[in-house]
Amino acid sequence: MHAITISEPGGPEKLTWTEVPDPVPGEGEVLVDVAAAAVNRADIMQRQGVYDPPPGASTYPGLECSGRIAALGPGVSGWSVGDEVCALLTGGGYAEKVAVPAGQLLPVPKGVSLVEAAGLPEVACTVWSNVFMVAHLRAGEVLLVQGGAGGIGTMAIQLARAIGARVAVTAGSKAKLDLCAELGADILINYHEQDFVTGIERATDGAGADVILDNMGGGEYLDRNVRALAVNGRLVIIGLQGGTKGELNIAALLMKEGTVTATSLRSRPLKEKAAIVAGVREHVWPLIAAGKVRPVIDRELHMADAAEAHRVMDESHIGKVLLTAR
Amino acid sequence: MHAITISEPGGPEKLTWTEVPDPVPGEGEVLVDVAAAAVNRADIMQRQGVYDPPPGASTYPGLECSGRIAALGPGVSGWSVGDEVCALLTGGGYAEKVAVPAGQLLPVPKGVSLVEAAGLPEVACTVWSNVFMVAHLRAGEVLLVQGGAGGIGTMAIQLARAIGARVAVTAGSKAKLDLCAELGADILINYHEQDFVTGIERATDGAGADVILDNMGGGEYLDRNVRALAVNGRLVIIGLQGGTKGELNIAALLMKEGTVTATSLRSRPLKEKAAIVAGVREHVWPLIAAGKVRPVIDRELHMADAAEAHRVMDESHIGKVLLTAR
Repeated sequence: MHAITISEPGGPEKLTWTEVPDPVPGEGEVLVDVAAAAVNRADIMQRQGVYDPPPGASTYPGLECSGRIAALGPGVSGWSVGDEVCALLTGGGYAEKVAVPAGQLLPVPKGVSLVEAAGLPEVACTVWSNVFMVAHLRAGEVLLVQGGAGGIGTMAIQLARAIGARVAVTAGSKAKLDLCAELGADILINYHEQDFVTGIERATDGAGADVILDNMGGGEYLDRNVRALAVNGRLVIIGLQGGTKGELNIAALLMKEGTVTATSLRSRPLKEKAAIVAGVREHVWPLIAAGKVRPVIDRELHMADAAEAHRVMDESHIGKVLLTAR
Repeated sequence: MHAITISEPGGPEKLTWTEVPDPVPGEGEVLVDVAAAAVNRADIMQRQGVYDPPPGASTYPGLECSGRIAALGPGVSGWSVGDEVCALLTGGGYAEKVAVPAGQLLPVPKGVSLVEAAGLPEVACTVWSNVFMVAHLRAGEVLLVQGGAGGIGTMAIQLARAIGARVAVTAGSKAKLDLCAELGADILINYHEQDFVTGIERATDGAGADVILDNMGGGEYLDRNVRALAVNGRLVIIGLQGGTKGELNIAALLMKEGTVTATSLRSRPLKEKAAIVAGVREHVWPLIAAGKVRPVIDRELHMADAAEAHRVMDESHIGKVLLTAR
């Protein structure tokens, strides 16, 4: 088969569509003939050499894909060869075939094409696990999504709205904020024009955000995120573009009874991933099938053009960038 | 009645036993004839002028007391004049009488004297709300208590042991560590002799602590507390002696799927305090009645000697320092 290999850490040009050996599904795994994969920020960090795959994971990038089951490894039940699936991966999605633990498979939801489904598992699992399982967002609460127009953001807006929460987003352009509004966000903050702490305070009569999902700011946003939290607020940090360290104002956090959690889906053990995938299948998939939540796709490119896809991610995109294998 | 007033922010000598008007119980409150109050770190910060009482609270120090109900305000049911009680207060415990919301009353537990009971509400509510309601410590997990020999620490050790957790403590002397061991702690770290991160790693085969209760270090301990956390670890900061700010290594927290929460019991709304008190009555009081958890008392002094009590707190103490009103 072919897969995208990273010749050495560096720019998008280091991604090469290369002939490599087929993966072999192990105990509890299935082999998937990949239809498409989706690009995530973590793939770019892996390409740059700053986010190595966990031990035992495929060295090819790609944290999610869709396709058809080509073979079952030992001990797999509940799935058949030929099933159309999408999957949460620990790596290896930028390839024609990938071996996946069966607990990380999801059926292609009703109303979504096989290729589009490639962009769902990572964002659905990330948003579900962090906003709902970790931060327990409830109806009537305010969710602030840092970076509302990306893959994570567009899923977070729709899921939060579907459960009855109010959604605030930050983004860097009017086009992105327009999309967020269309998906259901009603507090729209252009971070080039307004400090988001001021924006969220004005929109909530000073109360702040009950949950903040930070897929961007990391250390750079930490102090402002704490200031933007409501009493009993929960900040969940899942992206560190803005730095891996930041000053935490513990006194401010204490006055709010606030919580800061940082998580990474990729490094979690199989069992936890399977629990998250099961939660997504139970709670998120019916919302997609009902048309209340839809995948937002920026564009589709062929995997051989993965370098171009990474350039798009580095510049500006709205929703998911997909890579087709056929 | 008499109460301790703070003539101006400063040292222990600013505490004066003064004739003041009796408090009047409002809607949903009872008036308690105080038998004893207990000293907390927050009282010292209030005396120093760095921790003002919340709006509406008594300006006299004292966050917990015991005594007999002298009168019921309007709308109180379930309590009678003459009942022996102890209470979580928002202030005003260093006095001969105090008005208390009925939701913050607890009966004096079986086997504990009326005076000793003064030292239970604040520590029981603090430990129950933070270690169990916030951090969800479970049987088989490791709890690290920063400052194991104080009031909070001695309660945390006993409660954690009673539910089947393993307890690690830090303290600054052999005598304090001996007491912690006697109460059930089995990982004993003298912070003058050993870095606690190294200590906890050695004792847990590198796994770290599932829950850390930090009543001391605040900003100064933040980075080391994150390093000492296990995967899925929960750090709860309730004391800021070591500074109100600290650098948070978000990347390290993210690799552990870790959580940092900071809380303050005093500023919580009445309803939340009542829920915590109800939880303590249901879960902690039976353990005290069964002799599995006992109050640890450093000494008793008369309220007029509150200055001396504060000096003891500033120097060294083991368990609670009590102030009797009679």
